[in-house]
Amino acid sequence: MRMYDIIEKKRDGFELSQEEINFFISEYCNNKIPDYQAAAFLMAIFLKGMNERETAQLTDAMAHSGDMIDLSEIPGIKVDKHSTGGVGDKTTLILGPIVAACGIPVAKMSGRGLGHTGGTIDKLEAIPGFNTSISRETFIQNVKDIGIAIAGQTGNLAPADKKIYALRDVTATVNNISLIASSIMSKKLASGADRIVLDVKTGSGAFMKTLEDSVKLAQAMVKIGENTGRHTVAVVTEMDIPLGKAVGNSLEIIEAVETLKNRGPQDLAEVSFELAARMLELSGKGSFEHCRELVREAVESGKAINKFEELIARQGGRKEVIDDYSLFPQVKHVFEYKADTAGYISTMKTDTVGVASLELGAGRETKESTIDYAAGIYFNKKTGDRVEKGEVIATLYTNREEKIPQACSLLKQAIGLSDAQPEKKPLILAYIDSTGVEYNTF
Amino acid sequence: MRMYDIIEKKRDGFELSQEEINFFISEYCNNKIPDYQAAAFLMAIFLKGMNERETAQLTDAMAHSGDMIDLSEIPGIKVDKHSTGGVGDKTTLILGPIVAACGIPVAKMSGRGLGHTGGTIDKLEAIPGFNTSISRETFIQNVKDIGIAIAGQTGNLAPADKKIYALRDVTATVNNISLIASSIMSKKLASGADRIVLDVKTGSGAFMKTLEDSVKLAQAMVKIGENTGRHTVAVVTEMDIPLGKAVGNSLEIIEAVETLKNRGPQDLAEVSFELAARMLELSGKGSFEHCRELVREAVESGKAINKFEELIARQGGRKEVIDDYSLFPQVKHVFEYKADTAGYISTMKTDTVGVASLELGAGRETKESTIDYAAGIYFNKKTGDRVEKGEVIATLYTNREEKIPQACSLLKQAIGLSDAQPEKKPLILAYIDSTGVEYNTF
Repeated sequence: MRMYDIIEKKRDGFELSQEEINFFISEYCNNKIPDYQAAAFLMAIFLKGMNERETAQLTDAMAHSGDMIDLSEIPGIKVDKHSTGGVGDKTTLILGPIVAACGIPVAKMSGRGLGHTGGTIDKLEAIPGFNTSISRETFIQNVKDIGIAIAGQTGNLAPADKKIYALRDVTATVNNISLIASSIMSKKLASGADRIVLDVKTGSGAFMKTLEDSVKLAQAMVKIGENTGRHTVAVVTEMDIPLGKAVGNSLEIIEAVETLKNRGPQDLAEVSFELAARMLELSGKGSFEHCRELVREAVESGKAINKFEELIARQGGRKEVIDDYSLFPQVKHVFEYKADTAGYISTMKTDTVGVASLELGAGRETKESTIDYAAGIYFNKKTGDRVEKGEVIATLYTNREEKIPQACSLLKQAIGLSDAQPEKKPLILAYIDSTGVEYNTF
Repeated sequence: MRMYDIIEKKRDGFELSQEEINFFISEYCNNKIPDYQAAAFLMAIFLKGMNERETAQLTDAMAHSGDMIDLSEIPGIKVDKHSTGGVGDKTTLILGPIVAACGIPVAKMSGRGLGHTGGTIDKLEAIPGFNTSISRETFIQNVKDIGIAIAGQTGNLAPADKKIYALRDVTATVNNISLIASSIMSKKLASGADRIVLDVKTGSGAFMKTLEDSVKLAQAMVKIGENTGRHTVAVVTEMDIPLGKAVGNSLEIIEAVETLKNRGPQDLAEVSFELAARMLELSGKGSFEHCRELVREAVESGKAINKFEELIARQGGRKEVIDDYSLFPQVKHVFEYKADTAGYISTMKTDTVGVASLELGAGRETKESTIDYAAGIYFNKKTGDRVEKGEVIATLYTNREEKIPQACSLLKQAIGLSDAQPEKKPLILAYIDSTGVEYNTF
């Protein structure tokens, strides 16, 4: 088998066989195929496409290029949730304890963030003492004992995806549904969950800017899941405004705690509870309506916040943070960003909000950057809210006083005001499973 | 300007500006653009195409990436002929002396061959003493003195094309009309001729296998010529059978000499005389019909063969070879390949004939291989001829006795026999200039 022939075949629009796909992945990982051949091949895939079978087999081959995590020691069906990423997205911190409180094991391997805020692991490390680097044995044991563990990804998950993604990033071959879907799903397959709930974000703060593209991506990932034996469903959710009011690591932990205490922002609660209910439904806990009830009960009864407290304690964190937010690291500078004119907030360019938060210290610019857990932005007002001149729109938290003017300037670009109140948009836009797409209309 | 954006633009089917094309060529030649970006870009060009303007500007940028040969010291219009290459193609050796004998300067820089037989330079070196490595000054002086010089390419002609071709060759991006046309024409532009006659071969022994593709390539090259200020015309000629009867370097020189003496094979004479007449027409020697007359006169009068003799003498070769073919190097083994059944020769897979000739020593397998000038194949019979069982179809000349069985086996694959005499096909299939295509119908 020669890579040249495989490139030519895809270039001419033909379907690749499983053997050809496996050959590409294994030889490329072994550095036996040069980058220039892989680049030409990826451009051919980008322009000629892959069908459902090819996409699933590419994903499977990438998943098997490294460690395949085995969660079979944990009894029961393991459901994972994956978000395509957005600004202020802290749903994992909320739905994890809820699902565990409902008796479904949560064995969550999560990544660190690059860009506007940290990932779930970075956010958890904002809790003093919280240890995300636990051994495989402790991880499994914790899930067995208390139903939940959240740890940083260890081992070598889908190295083929890492190598291919790095090449796509410099050859203008990122933005292709099949390639994006296979990249995300390869890591999910390697992570060992039996079933997967996907949260596909859409809008200015998301990778996919339109509902149409987001649904396409969701469908592609659901099909990969089905074709590789992992039952998968997807929810498309709004990311045209930040989720919740807090952006920044400890600010987001506090907001997650508030939501688990049933007093968090409505939008965050709605999305988190929806995803939690989908996870329970996928685990066989009954109808979606029934699972929503289970979620409501878990939150209202206090079982969910108690589970989070238990998780923090088990992984070495100070569980007292649950009731005393002053135990989180504090910033030196708090600045109120105020409206210079009255009106309704009509738009929030969410990606620009993310950059402002990064400037204040909440994220990583490069892999080597350190995160300031206390830094971030709290939105006193969001899209649809009325503000008067001089009223506080956002509160900035930072240890980099010199960055405040830049962050304010970014917020000014990001936040649009209008005279008329904008129409309210749904948060949950669509639900996708192997039978099709159900759009939310209201 | 960033290469990433240029890749993306072409990927999405947009036209590239001259600045973008020049940026790619100059940065890629300076090793500032990595091969993987160039490979993705070439695949995007392959699949999305380039328009006439982009193709001409790419060609011009590649031509200007190295030396631009200046022939302005030679008075008059300099016309060059370029063939896309085929088996047994020795037309340059025939039309060069004819055109020079008609008073049009022939300043021919030519390449060496890779594959089935040598290039023009290799063929000339089969003449004892012939020196193809003459200085620029000698080259120009010889053209001024006797109207003709043929030398190996020196200097750094279109290095961008060399680098890009090497990458295309391993990334399945060779077979695209715009890229092929720009590759050929970039070297022609750099070679300094004012006007260009192209001989585009078509059929089993050519790069382009169908008439349709050959005409498209011819049109693309003619347009490049017009768009870069070099008046260009093209003739599409048959390469479904070897041209002439001789394949192999000294065998081909002898056949060229015979043709200049007006006793060569009819097909070789027809194509060579046609191309010579087109060159004369392009130089302003009058109508095509008149130029055909000039060619006929040059051959019949002996002026053409005398010019070849003069060329050989001037470049240090033994001009006596013109009348005494035994002065060429001789082989140790001559083998007659005979028909094992009677019939008409219906097909000759010309590329396979080329491989047989290579096996016997007539070509180069790699750049480092040395050519055996005496080796080759002489076809006693060709497509359309009747053979009886046991009759000699081809005579094999080699110093590698052990290769004879393999060469015979290749000839057996290449040569098809049938009961009915196949229809005669025209040799000159089409003529292309900036006004359009004229197909030959008879």
